[in-house]
Amino acid sequence: MDEMVDAILMSRTQSTATVQLTETLAIGGEELVLMAGPCSVESYEQTLSIAAIVHQAGVKVLRGGAFKPRTSPYAFQGLGAEGLEILRAAADEFGLLVVTEALGVEQLADVARVADIIQIGSRNMQHFPLLWAVGELQKPVLLKRGFMATVEEWLLAAEHIRSRGNERIILCERGIRSFDSSTRNVLDVMAIAQVKQDGKYPIIGDPSHATGRNDLVLPAARAVIAAGADGLIVEIHEQPEEALSDGDQALRPEEFVQLVNQVGDIGAALGRRLA
Amino acid sequence: MDEMVDAILMSRTQSTATVQLTETLAIGGEELVLMAGPCSVESYEQTLSIAAIVHQAGVKVLRGGAFKPRTSPYAFQGLGAEGLEILRAAADEFGLLVVTEALGVEQLADVARVADIIQIGSRNMQHFPLLWAVGELQKPVLLKRGFMATVEEWLLAAEHIRSRGNERIILCERGIRSFDSSTRNVLDVMAIAQVKQDGKYPIIGDPSHATGRNDLVLPAARAVIAAGADGLIVEIHEQPEEALSDGDQALRPEEFVQLVNQVGDIGAALGRRLA
Amino acid sequence: MDEMVDAILMSRTQSTATVQLTETLAIGGEELVLMAGPCSVESYEQTLSIAAIVHQAGVKVLRGGAFKPRTSPYAFQGLGAEGLEILRAAADEFGLLVVTEALGVEQLADVARVADIIQIGSRNMQHFPLLWAVGELQKPVLLKRGFMATVEEWLLAAEHIRSRGNERIILCERGIRSFDSSTRNVLDVMAIAQVKQDGKYPIIGDPSHATGRNDLVLPAARAVIAAGADGLIVEIHEQPEEALSDGDQALRPEEFVQLVNQVGDIGAALGRRLA
Amino acid sequence: MDEMVDAILMSRTQSTATVQLTETLAIGGEELVLMAGPCSVESYEQTLSIAAIVHQAGVKVLRGGAFKPRTSPYAFQGLGAEGLEILRAAADEFGLLVVTEALGVEQLADVARVADIIQIGSRNMQHFPLLWAVGELQKPVLLKRGFMATVEEWLLAAEHIRSRGNERIILCERGIRSFDSSTRNVLDVMAIAQVKQDGKYPIIGDPSHATGRNDLVLPAARAVIAAGADGLIVEIHEQPEEALSDGDQALRPEEFVQLVNQVGDIGAALGRRLA
Repeated sequence: MDEMVDAILMSRTQSTATVQLTETLAIGGEELVLMAGPCSVESYEQTLSIAAIVHQAGVKVLRGGAFKPRTSPYAFQGLGAEGLEILRAAADEFGLLVVTEALGVEQLADVARVADIIQIGSRNMQHFPLLWAVGELQKPVLLKRGFMATVEEWLLAAEHIRSRGNERIILCERGIRSFDSSTRNVLDVMAIAQVKQDGKYPIIGDPSHATGRNDLVLPAARAVIAAGADGLIVEIHEQPEEALSDGDQALRPEEFVQLVNQVGDIGAALGRRLA
Repeated sequence: MDEMVDAILMSRTQSTATVQLTETLAIGGEELVLMAGPCSVESYEQTLSIAAIVHQAGVKVLRGGAFKPRTSPYAFQGLGAEGLEILRAAADEFGLLVVTEALGVEQLADVARVADIIQIGSRNMQHFPLLWAVGELQKPVLLKRGFMATVEEWLLAAEHIRSRGNERIILCERGIRSFDSSTRNVLDVMAIAQVKQDGKYPIIGDPSHATGRNDLVLPAARAVIAAGADGLIVEIHEQPEEALSDGDQALRPEEFVQLVNQVGDIGAALGRRLA
Repeated sequence: MDEMVDAILMSRTQSTATVQLTETLAIGGEELVLMAGPCSVESYEQTLSIAAIVHQAGVKVLRGGAFKPRTSPYAFQGLGAEGLEILRAAADEFGLLVVTEALGVEQLADVARVADIIQIGSRNMQHFPLLWAVGELQKPVLLKRGFMATVEEWLLAAEHIRSRGNERIILCERGIRSFDSSTRNVLDVMAIAQVKQDGKYPIIGDPSHATGRNDLVLPAARAVIAAGADGLIVEIHEQPEEALSDGDQALRPEEFVQLVNQVGDIGAALGRRLA
Repeated sequence: MDEMVDAILMSRTQSTATVQLTETLAIGGEELVLMAGPCSVESYEQTLSIAAIVHQAGVKVLRGGAFKPRTSPYAFQGLGAEGLEILRAAADEFGLLVVTEALGVEQLADVARVADIIQIGSRNMQHFPLLWAVGELQKPVLLKRGFMATVEEWLLAAEHIRSRGNERIILCERGIRSFDSSTRNVLDVMAIAQVKQDGKYPIIGDPSHATGRNDLVLPAARAVIAAGADGLIVEIHEQPEEALSDGDQALRPEEFVQLVNQVGDIGAALGRRLA
């Protein structure tokens, strides 16, 4: 079986490892693509304000969660459909693209209507019905690595999408579980290098979820780019201590500007520039 | 937040940690409940033949997969709806109950029509839309532990079901990932002891998936029962080397009879008997 | 290389997987051998009192730490040479054997003079100079599994000892690290089953270190024996809350008596009896 | 206890996180220090030839193993004392410093006579007698992280050395164990960022052991520096396929030159330069 899979994987041309996001914006080539925004969409005002910061920093893609997967049923679960509308409206004010997560097949049509890039979250990396369903669409998909998935399983999850026809897949390394709880997860920069060697998909890193600590997001972002990633997805909040979810890992606006600058410098050392 | 959750969890009465499966069969009390059958339903003949073996061994619940979650899209994905019909028909020949997995919300109605116990698989332990959907039903749910989930996350996943109204939840320990690949997973018997101390749910063990090696299924089954589990779920195949999935871990019929005997002996040492 | 190692390992006769501890006491055969005592030797009175409890329960081997490996240099490091004398004297009052740890080559002569079984701790499983040094002795060695070692690495560590001439090796499973901190380590009962299948060494389990929680020691002990282990090593303290090390995992005397009874019952179900 | 330790750790001045290696070479400041050489010292010719390559690349420290810790007793264990002499002689030809591992206390005097920096290997990170013994010396120590040690345990291991008087400690991140075997270990770049925040020790990374694959050493090296490390230790071999140990991870000379250039570029982006 493994040999058959290998043969199928090998038979693909390796020349198209970029995904076109708009006519003028592609990921996987020379340009580094950043995506940033709040963990959760909390209100129109909050989202609009962060969208302005994202835009001012020259970033082209706004992230934000409307449907939030939460370990406890008693935690904030997101604004749902209303959050999607807010996200779209805030992005449109600044001509930004939108990336947001679909939690299940039943929300996919709603998410696809609003999003430019559909995110599949870490806990859903092997929820196959969802992979098959986004495989039927013709929209870019951001497939996050399961926090306990091997690189091989992750590439095969992408293959579940691809086998249904959608080849516009972007991978996202967001940290894996380990025995050490000093960071929320272990950022696996070598997974990035392996995916780039594999050559079939663009890949970005998520330093916010990988570390869970805003004091580590900048070095994590630099390491991700130095390892060869094609971009980043980062969480921002104007008052992290009041965020409805994941405030510990959100960057303040001024820290985000620092991040953009440092990532630009590392990229330049590798012959790449910010999109 | 954690304290609020604790308070909610504590406020439940701890006296009802049994789940009634039929009028005369309950899990979580003095009796040990075994569930057995093929990994995948492959044909009516195969399933009927294994159902006969299960019945002859005195076991009351037939397991079998119709929708199979597979790492690779090129592996056998199960017979689907046809598999459900076969499983029900074979079980009915011998008056057995049926436990089978629902892969996603969109299949749930079909699975619920056929199954006496609805299984949520390891990869779906945190697929929240599915947890919410089975929470709306009034059928027993077998919630497998995510192979990367902590005991606390697992109990909170059960809480996602419970918060929607369905309290008939049975947990299943099936092994967690580790750095040692000598077994497919690490059977975490202490998770069983912790769930029993928690006192809110019956729990069984899955020695087949936990070990991935049929030569280790018997000692694993004994250890599971010795740790305090209320039962087991086990895979059987008449010709493991020809199984369409997971042949390496399936017991032959004669090994299964040995397992039932040994589990009976360990149970007796603890004052419990086979249902 | 792997093949060469396999050939060497295979060439050993598999018939002598028992280790003779005294003329009348062997481990690895029909009898289950228990070892019990304090984590640290704290004083002569404490050790004598626990030795009496151990003896009364019918147990033949007294454990106790004189040299304690501690994560922090500011934690209690054991009584050292004085602790060894106390341990020997207390054991002799009741005709017990002594098992205690040698932290390094430089202490080995002192430990060997006092101990009937020399323990190599988990952190030292791959400290090769120590393995080679105990390999030159003719005393039984208790080789604990590294909390981060695969079963294969553990068997090769035993081979480091064996290659120097000492074949009287007993293995001890004491839990491995995982991502879940609800227990100190994950008790890997399937490692026990694998070592028994390998057939070259007797093996015991350490439910105290594996769980780090005294409320889980009894189910852990039962699971260890049910998986096929040849015995146990257990920590006891008369006032666990005042222990100088690892009080959280020590059994009180009355709990220890319960453990001995339950282990006897599980052993009987498997055709084995307490030594 | 934890609070006491915290207090002790906090009381140290955080201003001296550099270690002076010679009068003109320090690690932990603005300059990046590279260390490179063969995994094992195999012969004088091999070592001299690699020393020349190291020197030509402008690197100041030669690494090489004389005593090799090997999982199997049947693998090559190093040239021992003869290897030490070879290493020193080869280094002296080019005015290089020497870093090499002491496997145990009993070899320490010999190693200390030859080495400018004494390496404590990953498997020995918690071999306390060795930590105490190097703590009595006045030579720089390179303390590798245990491949299953938390950052906190690692810092406490350093404290075991420091508590005996030797404060010239350099930490080395070399990868931790995980469930994914696609790389030998997982390079934990965020451990580097945490150690730098802690501010008490300089830290370098070992991309060779962290990845175990020479095709990943360059991106790993870049990520290490981008995360804030003060240097690198790298393995080189002229014919990796004939290396007596770890050939899979050794760089060829021309790849090593590439690494030095790329690390220089990343360093420059961060305002640092190669020593």
